[in-house]
Amino acid sequence: MTQPLDSTGSWLPESRAEPDVDRYRREGLTDPSAAVALPHDASGRVQLSFSPGARAVRVPPGVTVFDAASWNGIAIDSTCGGHGTCKKCKVQILDGSVPITSLDARSFTADRLAEGWRLACMAQATQDLRVEVPPLTTRPKAATVGVGRQVILRPAVQKRYVELTEPSLTDQRPDLNRLLDAIDDLELKPDLHALRRLPAVLRAADYRVTAVVVDEALIDVEAGDTTSRRFAIAFDLGTTTVVATLLDLSTGTPVAVESMLNKQQPFGGDVISRISATMMDPSALGRLCAAAHATLAELTADVCAEGGVDPAEVYEIALAGNATMTALALGIDPEPLGVAPFIMSSSAPPVVLARDLGVAVHPGARGVLFPALGAYVGGDIVSGMLATGMDRDKRLRLFIDVGTNCEIVLGDGERILATAAPAGPAFEGGAIRCGMRAAEGAIEGVRLTEDVELQVIGDVAPAGLCGSGLVDVVAELVKVGLLDGSGRFVTEEAASELAPALAERLTKVGEERVFVLHRPDGVSQTAHTVFLSQRDVRELQFAKAAISTGWTLLIEELGLDPGDVQQVLLAGSFGSYLSPASAVRIGLVPKLPVLRIVSAGNVAGEGAKMALLSQRERAGATTLLEEVRYVELSDRKDFNDRFVDQLAFPV
Amino acid sequence: MTQPLDSTGSWLPESRAEPDVDRYRREGLTDPSAAVALPHDASGRVQLSFSPGARAVRVPPGVTVFDAASWNGIAIDSTCGGHGTCKKCKVQILDGSVPITSLDARSFTADRLAEGWRLACMAQATQDLRVEVPPLTTRPKAATVGVGRQVILRPAVQKRYVELTEPSLTDQRPDLNRLLDAIDDLELKPDLHALRRLPAVLRAADYRVTAVVVDEALIDVEAGDTTSRRFAIAFDLGTTTVVATLLDLSTGTPVAVESMLNKQQPFGGDVISRISATMMDPSALGRLCAAAHATLAELTADVCAEGGVDPAEVYEIALAGNATMTALALGIDPEPLGVAPFIMSSSAPPVVLARDLGVAVHPGARGVLFPALGAYVGGDIVSGMLATGMDRDKRLRLFIDVGTNCEIVLGDGERILATAAPAGPAFEGGAIRCGMRAAEGAIEGVRLTEDVELQVIGDVAPAGLCGSGLVDVVAELVKVGLLDGSGRFVTEEAASELAPALAERLTKVGEERVFVLHRPDGVSQTAHTVFLSQRDVRELQFAKAAISTGWTLLIEELGLDPGDVQQVLLAGSFGSYLSPASAVRIGLVPKLPVLRIVSAGNVAGEGAKMALLSQRERAGATTLLEEVRYVELSDRKDFNDRFVDQLAFPV
Repeated sequence: MTQPLDSTGSWLPESRAEPDVDRYRREGLTDPSAAVALPHDASGRVQLSFSPGARAVRVPPGVTVFDAASWNGIAIDSTCGGHGTCKKCKVQILDGSVPITSLDARSFTADRLAEGWRLACMAQATQDLRVEVPPLTTRPKAATVGVGRQVILRPAVQKRYVELTEPSLTDQRPDLNRLLDAIDDLELKPDLHALRRLPAVLRAADYRVTAVVVDEALIDVEAGDTTSRRFAIAFDLGTTTVVATLLDLSTGTPVAVESMLNKQQPFGGDVISRISATMMDPSALGRLCAAAHATLAELTADVCAEGGVDPAEVYEIALAGNATMTALALGIDPEPLGVAPFIMSSSAPPVVLARDLGVAVHPGARGVLFPALGAYVGGDIVSGMLATGMDRDKRLRLFIDVGTNCEIVLGDGERILATAAPAGPAFEGGAIRCGMRAAEGAIEGVRLTEDVELQVIGDVAPAGLCGSGLVDVVAELVKVGLLDGSGRFVTEEAASELAPALAERLTKVGEERVFVLHRPDGVSQTAHTVFLSQRDVRELQFAKAAISTGWTLLIEELGLDPGDVQQVLLAGSFGSYLSPASAVRIGLVPKLPVLRIVSAGNVAGEGAKMALLSQRERAGATTLLEEVRYVELSDRKDFNDRFVDQLAFPV
Repeated sequence: MTQPLDSTGSWLPESRAEPDVDRYRREGLTDPSAAVALPHDASGRVQLSFSPGARAVRVPPGVTVFDAASWNGIAIDSTCGGHGTCKKCKVQILDGSVPITSLDARSFTADRLAEGWRLACMAQATQDLRVEVPPLTTRPKAATVGVGRQVILRPAVQKRYVELTEPSLTDQRPDLNRLLDAIDDLELKPDLHALRRLPAVLRAADYRVTAVVVDEALIDVEAGDTTSRRFAIAFDLGTTTVVATLLDLSTGTPVAVESMLNKQQPFGGDVISRISATMMDPSALGRLCAAAHATLAELTADVCAEGGVDPAEVYEIALAGNATMTALALGIDPEPLGVAPFIMSSSAPPVVLARDLGVAVHPGARGVLFPALGAYVGGDIVSGMLATGMDRDKRLRLFIDVGTNCEIVLGDGERILATAAPAGPAFEGGAIRCGMRAAEGAIEGVRLTEDVELQVIGDVAPAGLCGSGLVDVVAELVKVGLLDGSGRFVTEEAASELAPALAERLTKVGEERVFVLHRPDGVSQTAHTVFLSQRDVRELQFAKAAISTGWTLLIEELGLDPGDVQQVLLAGSFGSYLSPASAVRIGLVPKLPVLRIVSAGNVAGEGAKMALLSQRERAGATTLLEEVRYVELSDRKDFNDRFVDQLAFPV
């Protein structure tokens, strides 16, 4: 919805009768009415069957055979990464037609062309195809990332060790030409930095050097063979917490992981307070940008120290963050994100260097950002969709990133719908009387039996209630009957009858009815007592209703039923700790067997890792974005009614 | 040749029996033996006949129809500059075949495709073609630049004024998408700088803004309509003199021109002394780079002030310089250029910003550099070839850039040969007893009649002899007979007989015979006397022999005779002032009618202007480079003999 986070906390959806089809067209989004008209199938996709192995995949028309294979873990030979230069990605089209490109004409004889041989990286699939993939000449490495995603290692960062002949009067090739002639499967453009270093490094190293390549850029040349040293850093730039993972690109494995609080905290805990800061003080944007950079810089130093890696060996970074965090890190004014009509500066990310983000690694290191779908479905969610394979898994899956702003994605591998719901701060402990963040002392799990069983973070006495604990206690109170379906504490009489062992905990703090979770030993002191108030329950009801209204409407949009959902992925630092059973009980997720409800972990960070490990996966983020349809909840006349329906707990 | 400028001034060609054909292949140069085997004609070119107008042009295979037309002044509709996005460059192939690209398939109906309609920017000419060009919908502007070159104005810098609809809850397109949707014939990538400014500028200007585009980059967005303000600066970065021309890209006209001495002068007058400086002092490279930047920066400020242009309105610069000047401006170690085997860092220029060259104009302004052929045939010569149309004019033409290092190019519009000859410092007044640079007081022209008629720079008494004066006096002395064909002053007796009015000027300074050009009034003081010594004549003979050996061998290489040359272009600050008659008389140029000998002016600077005015011409510099064959004079066994033959003056 478009007004998830206005400063008053109120939320007034606008009504519109018709979806804005023009907008989908303008933005290149999939128009659902148009999709039906396409010949291939209802989704507009084409099917590619790869042999040997008879694996079939479905992709949007126009995707290359190479990409379609790569995204689905089918390896095709290539050293140039699909840029049409190495000419190694030869495949044979057995059924279906692919036009002959000029590169094909130069790569194959007329006979081979007639037999259907094409370069996979140039072959756009515009109809169903059957494709024969020759055996690999080299075995590519793969790594498991995200939610069971097997990623073939094809990082944008490549290193090539070469031993060149020295120049002579009969071989006066320029230094760069001499180097590039030895790497002729890549078409490289040198950074000025690399060109400045080239003459001295070549001569000092007796013409035995390692070229450092990122995508199509030659960013450096290093003396001797340094091919085993190739690193990148994936950042999950959260509003609260920032996580850095140092990756060894040769193996795909994490070398070091560090996290810390975002240094922007002094400007406020959520995106709206930080946006407000920039609106009230012209210097705040610069300071917020600097704080983000300082956070990334400190994490960079930490992971490099921990991993024993020279920062100059880090040639690329990737950053997943919500639209506001990304804007602030880039020094872009976030104000239009925070006020109606909630406008991003760009859906596609700009081309930047790591140093533009304040990260002092190799001076030519590139910075990879994720495209975003809207002001409240940012690059972190696109990264998360990549990590969870929302565009590829054929099951009907629901992805929920629970937070102040809750992003919801529903996909069946063909159609993907996304929306954002203003859950408010309840899940982060905000607006909850005894609420706190998931830190030491927070009650993160609750079980009500004859007594109250608490799971507390750290080996300390309970100090408050974090989001997962909040969901747990409400779910348990509903189960034992102390909360009725409408979210009201039952009368004391009813409590004594329904749960005699717990009834005495149902008491009052001031005028408000509460359920006491923890009373410190010794003298009773309210300050050290942890309880759940009636108003806290209402806050949670509002939050969960916003979310469940979101996924209910997305599921209806596909003409399906909540019971059809085959997997629910709970993402984000909160979602990962949530009890599936409790989530079902309060109606935060559809009523499904708990095994179908999966903690997906830090999927934004996982997507950032994938983007670093595979150029193809990175390209997939953009393709994915084109397939997602953003559903504007505020467009719906019936939203308010539906929201009220969802306030109650399921029976 | 490969050793044009060694520090002793001596020059020892190496002998090689065969040209290094492998090198041509490695470097992508045209191998003359291979060319003969191609089917089209001896040059390997294909012919394109354009109608209406029936203009035929010949281009290397693979050039697009769009480029071939554009380079030859035939305008085809386009707004995207030939990047395949605007789809306006529709042409009909009447004869010959051009494959259908995927873009063609999306742009034309099957009927139109069958009729031969193609997008000219995608249509590669690989065989002779007849092409029908539809009438233009807009009339492109053109400018005359270089040596009679008519350039169709298609600068890389474009401005687009747009009036956008304001965003609303029903139109939440991101700022960038909103802007780019309005410029949908271009596929643009935003600079981070542009993206940072976009939100504020859009809102401050009520969504009426001008997009600033360079090639495919959106480098800025400006409030209101600024389309009439679009500037660029062309630099001729000479070893001695640096010239800046501020161009109005809307009209193609120069707004201001300024020149100044290169601030690198304290490091030495020629490239070798500057290279030596970097070899002796590790800090010299940084200081030379800074001096170049300071020179460019001062000229930038000057031309902007003179033209009334805000430097922030300058969005692109182009720089033509020899290989050493270019390396120093980029901060690249020039040492390998100065010692055998004379190696460039790169033949293709790196992608740089104007600020990388120390030029403080728009922060996103691009810097355009020229590719180079070798350590001694640099970007300045490639720029000069572009400005003189060496690759297009069908006449046999000889291009000579006279200087310490003299570059010679011979072309007939199909074949282009280039070489470099070590003329030494004579033409710049160096090693000449009364030599001086072409500055105030320099004798720049000499005529010997009954008396000595001198043409002096400025309204002052003669102070010395500059290059053109040197050539003149020697030529005149040969004409009147005071110098014999071998370059020796005739005896006093012979002088009295041959030129009685001048004979008394043939005298001695110390032990050396001299011809006195100017004696100050009053008491004779050698210090104020300007004369030509016997040794000066020898210096000139060596210089002109190096040059004439160069062009003689190039002409022979084509199996032609010096009399076949239809035009001689004398370039560079020296060449432009040279008397054609004197140049013929001393044998500096082939013996031709003087009308065929043309002063081409500052062609390096003109080429830089062309690169700024037309993306097509800029691309032409690279194409041109691929066609030029560098002839290594030191490879020739007979060079020494030929050099000695050329020492004498022609009879």
